[in-house]
Amino acid sequence: MERVRDLFSGSPLTEGASFEVLRLTETELHLGVRADQKTIEDLLALGFEQDQVQDPQWQSAPADGVAPESFYSTTHHKTQVWLDGEWTDVLDQRMDGCLTLKNSTPVCIKLRDIKEGSPILTGFMGVRLVHDSSREESHEFAFMANDVSSERRAEVQTKRVVDLARKARDNGQKIVWVPGPVIVHTGASRELELLARAGWVDSVLSGNALAVHDIDAQWLGTSLGVSVEDGRVMPHGHSHHMRAINKVRAHGSIPAAVQAGDLESGLMHSLVENKIPYVLAGSIRDDGPLPDTEMDLFKAQDQYAEQLKGAGLVIILSTMLHGIGVGNMLSGEVPLVCVDIHPAVATKLADRGSAHAIGIVTDVGLFVRRLREQLIEG
Amino acid sequence: MERVRDLFSGSPLTEGASFEVLRLTETELHLGVRADQKTIEDLLALGFEQDQVQDPQWQSAPADGVAPESFYSTTHHKTQVWLDGEWTDVLDQRMDGCLTLKNSTPVCIKLRDIKEGSPILTGFMGVRLVHDSSREESHEFAFMANDVSSERRAEVQTKRVVDLARKARDNGQKIVWVPGPVIVHTGASRELELLARAGWVDSVLSGNALAVHDIDAQWLGTSLGVSVEDGRVMPHGHSHHMRAINKVRAHGSIPAAVQAGDLESGLMHSLVENKIPYVLAGSIRDDGPLPDTEMDLFKAQDQYAEQLKGAGLVIILSTMLHGIGVGNMLSGEVPLVCVDIHPAVATKLADRGSAHAIGIVTDVGLFVRRLREQLIEG
Amino acid sequence: MERVRDLFSGSPLTEGASFEVLRLTETELHLGVRADQKTIEDLLALGFEQDQVQDPQWQSAPADGVAPESFYSTTHHKTQVWLDGEWTDVLDQRMDGCLTLKNSTPVCIKLRDIKEGSPILTGFMGVRLVHDSSREESHEFAFMANDVSSERRAEVQTKRVVDLARKARDNGQKIVWVPGPVIVHTGASRELELLARAGWVDSVLSGNALAVHDIDAQWLGTSLGVSVEDGRVMPHGHSHHMRAINKVRAHGSIPAAVQAGDLESGLMHSLVENKIPYVLAGSIRDDGPLPDTEMDLFKAQDQYAEQLKGAGLVIILSTMLHGIGVGNMLSGEVPLVCVDIHPAVATKLADRGSAHAIGIVTDVGLFVRRLREQLIEG
Amino acid sequence: MERVRDLFSGSPLTEGASFEVLRLTETELHLGVRADQKTIEDLLALGFEQDQVQDPQWQSAPADGVAPESFYSTTHHKTQVWLDGEWTDVLDQRMDGCLTLKNSTPVCIKLRDIKEGSPILTGFMGVRLVHDSSREESHEFAFMANDVSSERRAEVQTKRVVDLARKARDNGQKIVWVPGPVIVHTGASRELELLARAGWVDSVLSGNALAVHDIDAQWLGTSLGVSVEDGRVMPHGHSHHMRAINKVRAHGSIPAAVQAGDLESGLMHSLVENKIPYVLAGSIRDDGPLPDTEMDLFKAQDQYAEQLKGAGLVIILSTMLHGIGVGNMLSGEVPLVCVDIHPAVATKLADRGSAHAIGIVTDVGLFVRRLREQLIEG
Repeated sequence: MERVRDLFSGSPLTEGASFEVLRLTETELHLGVRADQKTIEDLLALGFEQDQVQDPQWQSAPADGVAPESFYSTTHHKTQVWLDGEWTDVLDQRMDGCLTLKNSTPVCIKLRDIKEGSPILTGFMGVRLVHDSSREESHEFAFMANDVSSERRAEVQTKRVVDLARKARDNGQKIVWVPGPVIVHTGASRELELLARAGWVDSVLSGNALAVHDIDAQWLGTSLGVSVEDGRVMPHGHSHHMRAINKVRAHGSIPAAVQAGDLESGLMHSLVENKIPYVLAGSIRDDGPLPDTEMDLFKAQDQYAEQLKGAGLVIILSTMLHGIGVGNMLSGEVPLVCVDIHPAVATKLADRGSAHAIGIVTDVGLFVRRLREQLIEG
Repeated sequence: MERVRDLFSGSPLTEGASFEVLRLTETELHLGVRADQKTIEDLLALGFEQDQVQDPQWQSAPADGVAPESFYSTTHHKTQVWLDGEWTDVLDQRMDGCLTLKNSTPVCIKLRDIKEGSPILTGFMGVRLVHDSSREESHEFAFMANDVSSERRAEVQTKRVVDLARKARDNGQKIVWVPGPVIVHTGASRELELLARAGWVDSVLSGNALAVHDIDAQWLGTSLGVSVEDGRVMPHGHSHHMRAINKVRAHGSIPAAVQAGDLESGLMHSLVENKIPYVLAGSIRDDGPLPDTEMDLFKAQDQYAEQLKGAGLVIILSTMLHGIGVGNMLSGEVPLVCVDIHPAVATKLADRGSAHAIGIVTDVGLFVRRLREQLIEG
Repeated sequence: MERVRDLFSGSPLTEGASFEVLRLTETELHLGVRADQKTIEDLLALGFEQDQVQDPQWQSAPADGVAPESFYSTTHHKTQVWLDGEWTDVLDQRMDGCLTLKNSTPVCIKLRDIKEGSPILTGFMGVRLVHDSSREESHEFAFMANDVSSERRAEVQTKRVVDLARKARDNGQKIVWVPGPVIVHTGASRELELLARAGWVDSVLSGNALAVHDIDAQWLGTSLGVSVEDGRVMPHGHSHHMRAINKVRAHGSIPAAVQAGDLESGLMHSLVENKIPYVLAGSIRDDGPLPDTEMDLFKAQDQYAEQLKGAGLVIILSTMLHGIGVGNMLSGEVPLVCVDIHPAVATKLADRGSAHAIGIVTDVGLFVRRLREQLIEG
Repeated sequence: MERVRDLFSGSPLTEGASFEVLRLTETELHLGVRADQKTIEDLLALGFEQDQVQDPQWQSAPADGVAPESFYSTTHHKTQVWLDGEWTDVLDQRMDGCLTLKNSTPVCIKLRDIKEGSPILTGFMGVRLVHDSSREESHEFAFMANDVSSERRAEVQTKRVVDLARKARDNGQKIVWVPGPVIVHTGASRELELLARAGWVDSVLSGNALAVHDIDAQWLGTSLGVSVEDGRVMPHGHSHHMRAINKVRAHGSIPAAVQAGDLESGLMHSLVENKIPYVLAGSIRDDGPLPDTEMDLFKAQDQYAEQLKGAGLVIILSTMLHGIGVGNMLSGEVPLVCVDIHPAVATKLADRGSAHAIGIVTDVGLFVRRLREQLIEG
């Protein structure tokens, strides 16, 4: 029955641990494992539980923004800490954070938000990942993530995203969009505008370029110097985006340009009109920037994280930069859809640890059009 | 006015030739050029005309399938030969062929079709490329080809292809499709079926895998082992395509399977039912193959070329192999659309000399759906 | 201990089967499974053994080239058939074949080689996949295959291939190379020449274009119209490959051109000089072709398969077409290395079932150079 | 002589302008053009000169950071302004800026650096692009940029970059490197270390991730959780980069970690030891960040621009984000080499207007190794 041994290969069980069967039914097998401390920690990291739970070890932070050397580094997965004899949920779960206590409750915080002297969980004792039903679902996503390929029906994938969007709305959760500027060139921004008006957009997280290209398209009919109407390169088109930036700077902000009646169409106009919050995070390549772009990235990251609270679905459209940013901030319980024509982008998102991402390799313009047709008309 | 010199850069004019203005109007500039023989030949290859046309030089083919060493190697472009004091169109224009005379008419033939002793045009005298209105159009395509990018609106590109299809039909010319097997996985084959029934498909040029996956999808509901309905991997799915092949082999051919009532749906069924001709060219990677697959490539190339006669539009869907094959056989006057999610494929087609190709980087499933919506419903 | 249940997820054990522990030591766990016929077959396909082995079911082939409908479709993996009370190795293991008996020995054959009336194994009884040490190794490759990424050190991967090449040579097995024409443009063909002279090339499987571009580079200094020396586009360069083809046609074959003293350098010259066999399989896109190119694909597939006998390592360089062809013909016990700058190519090879492939995403010119440096100098 | 008319296609000359020959020699053609104001402006933008130069039109900036609506938007190209009867070079040439006067000298500044009331050049009169010898060279690069392809010899391209590096050093100009974190995973960072020690690195512009992965590799032997030595996934590897960040935060900075003797190897160590300046620009996806990472992007852009002063060669390694940032800041006279395994990255850089970029599609690890071999040993 050697195949079964295969099933353990790659797990810590195969390297020196001894085990015994604790319970065996027709559908369940419980094993007891005896092993050295390191293997035990590895097993805990995999989701095994400890027989005799040991209390977590807290150490004081040595300085502001600095954790003790052996701090527990968090993952996406829902996590619990053993406090006062029971497993307590961690708040604000995110990746690459550490665990502290606020009002006797375990909370996930970023390294830079640590205060000197505050308790930080170290080692792997008294902490566990929770394997609940929503994680089962994310397992399914993990399968999809490994399976990123243009050789899958975009139709099947559209339906999956439509289901997730309906479920998020039914649950009263937010649908957060993370679009890159390419949505303007591909026509997806017009579709997103329609979705915004129909109530399918609760928040938009992006950067300077999205807003610039969207406004350029409204005012000068171009995007990256190319006519939005017929795809022709326009004379002087390369300077159009600078004119758009300058004009918004003259107004003071995008909402001011809308209020002045100067910006009358497009995605950004639609977000302002429908009071849908957006965050434009700056980047080293930004021209201008628009007054609305947040060039202080500490603030931008905090604003992103704020918008992601209560999200039931996050949809990344053709932007690796902002997509990875969002992926890091998000609990693994929130479905994350990443649409891109480059397979490498979805792969990269998965490589960074966002294993719950659904990677969809397709034309973003046509895909968002299908989403809109099904969400609004279907 | 140094910019003008720029416009000549890269042309033979910049290296040692002298020139004079022959005629100058508000919109035309005729230059006379004096240069050595090699430069003259280069200029002729570029489309310049000779002042005093020299008769073409014909040499006898030294053996069957072998041209004289200095044979004129043809391009896509419409070509004329100086015969009896006038420019005569070359028949059967194709790339990488040579020129012979049949019944006193210049004809383009493949190397392997040369007969020993037949006259083959050598050198560059007495032959010219014709620059007519349809070539102007192909210039526009050339622009698109260099501009292959997913950052262009698929909608604009869809419209362009719809226009070309309508124009071909209005001209009584054929619309030839060259799809790869990926159209089954992406759902484009269902759309192509609808287009076939509506009269938008005059011929299909492909290979073994397209038919196998299409028939697999009808009989066993899978394509490459993946469920066509929900994208799940099916147990034993990897053997399904072999079962489909075996069953067609038992019938003797695809039409026989249709006639026996055993194949009742799908693209191949639809082609048989609508009497639309198809050619399945074999490849070294083919399993089986289907009895309908032509494994003798001399025959397959001839059958492809036969189907391409009278084509007014050729649409390549996600197949570099068959796409390049078709590109080589085709006159540059026929618009060639190449749809693929991999930018490298369209680039490669252009690199091979099919400069008149329109490269469209998009999801082939969603793109053919949009084509169908606009051609049939729009 | 729910994690263990996880380890079974995706296996047939989780769906309705009951099981009991047969044997449990500190490092091994043998399970007995009771399940319905279908699940049993699924488990057999996974590598489980049957308690009471049942004899295989043979049915007569209904016609030449046609298997009984429920034929067992083979995989890459080493397979055994239960004959006369013992497990007997299958000869000529390959993917997508079926099993017959020749001289009382089970043999893997292609569908088209079936003779009417010969016994063909059907169903899943009395056949098993063998899980031996070489398969363990291929498991490691499988890991790499899923892990195709340019973000891995080419150096680590070079070392791995060097080790495999040395091991193949130590075992007296062949090293078979499957290069695409791009190796000429990237300079890898010069490196392969050096490897050929040093005895690291036992066979070359490719197509018309490889030989054409190699010979074009020797005679006219270009490849695809681009100078091999300095990367510049040459005037008339596009016709060079046709001149090279014509000249070889005049000689009658590549070896004849070498013997005549006309082809004095390059990869093909080196293969001829060192008496290294090569097969050039035709394709629908081939110009010419060279007289050495086999345009009858039945013959070409047989010649490929013949060269692959005794292979201990197969290295595919930048060619999906020939790579998939070879992958289909090869037993899973032979390591298969696929080097390509496009991640999609390695993915596609894996998708086709060549799970034992090592996918290396890198520049093929620089990679083969590193291989040569380490194999010959290191 | 219709080919010549072709050479004008796409230029404003073809649409309604009349022209006459002013001067014609064997190698030069000067045309006089009469056209409407808009066409004149288009021609000026193309590099044509005005017969009667008109003085530039300056308008006062309406507010801090805001230009007059019709401001002249700068390009990469070397630019001159007509001042006091002569053409004066513009200082600090960069893309997407505007032109002002400082001490009676025309200077290129960013929109956000405009002061209310300062003179800003508007329209296209009295400003011209200069076509000098270094631009001829950049033309050659432009050709390469359009010709981005993995089907070119990396060797030829290596030699070209080696020549540019030697030329920059001979001219006393800086060689600035813009590497992404992938250089750690591919082994290119070790090569860059050697180049840094040998004096071929004058400045490094990158982001948080490069330094994190480099230091992670030194301290914990991993990069993105993967062993640097043998490519295996390490247990807990995903948290290693957070431990590296935390440890540097405890030290206060990377130089402090080096000084404390805690960071003893790697690229960042080497930069500190050799007093080579580096700028780490923050991004929305950054974890930590390191104390050395500048999260205020106004400051980061200024620091980048400062380092680029005096650059004679800029080499971008596998980072689109920082590469585009640098491309925007750079005069077109500085050669810009962009090495990436993804063709889309080089294309995107060119699309953004960095037409003087040499795009090299190759494996960055092997490529920088070849560079190092040739620059140091060769």
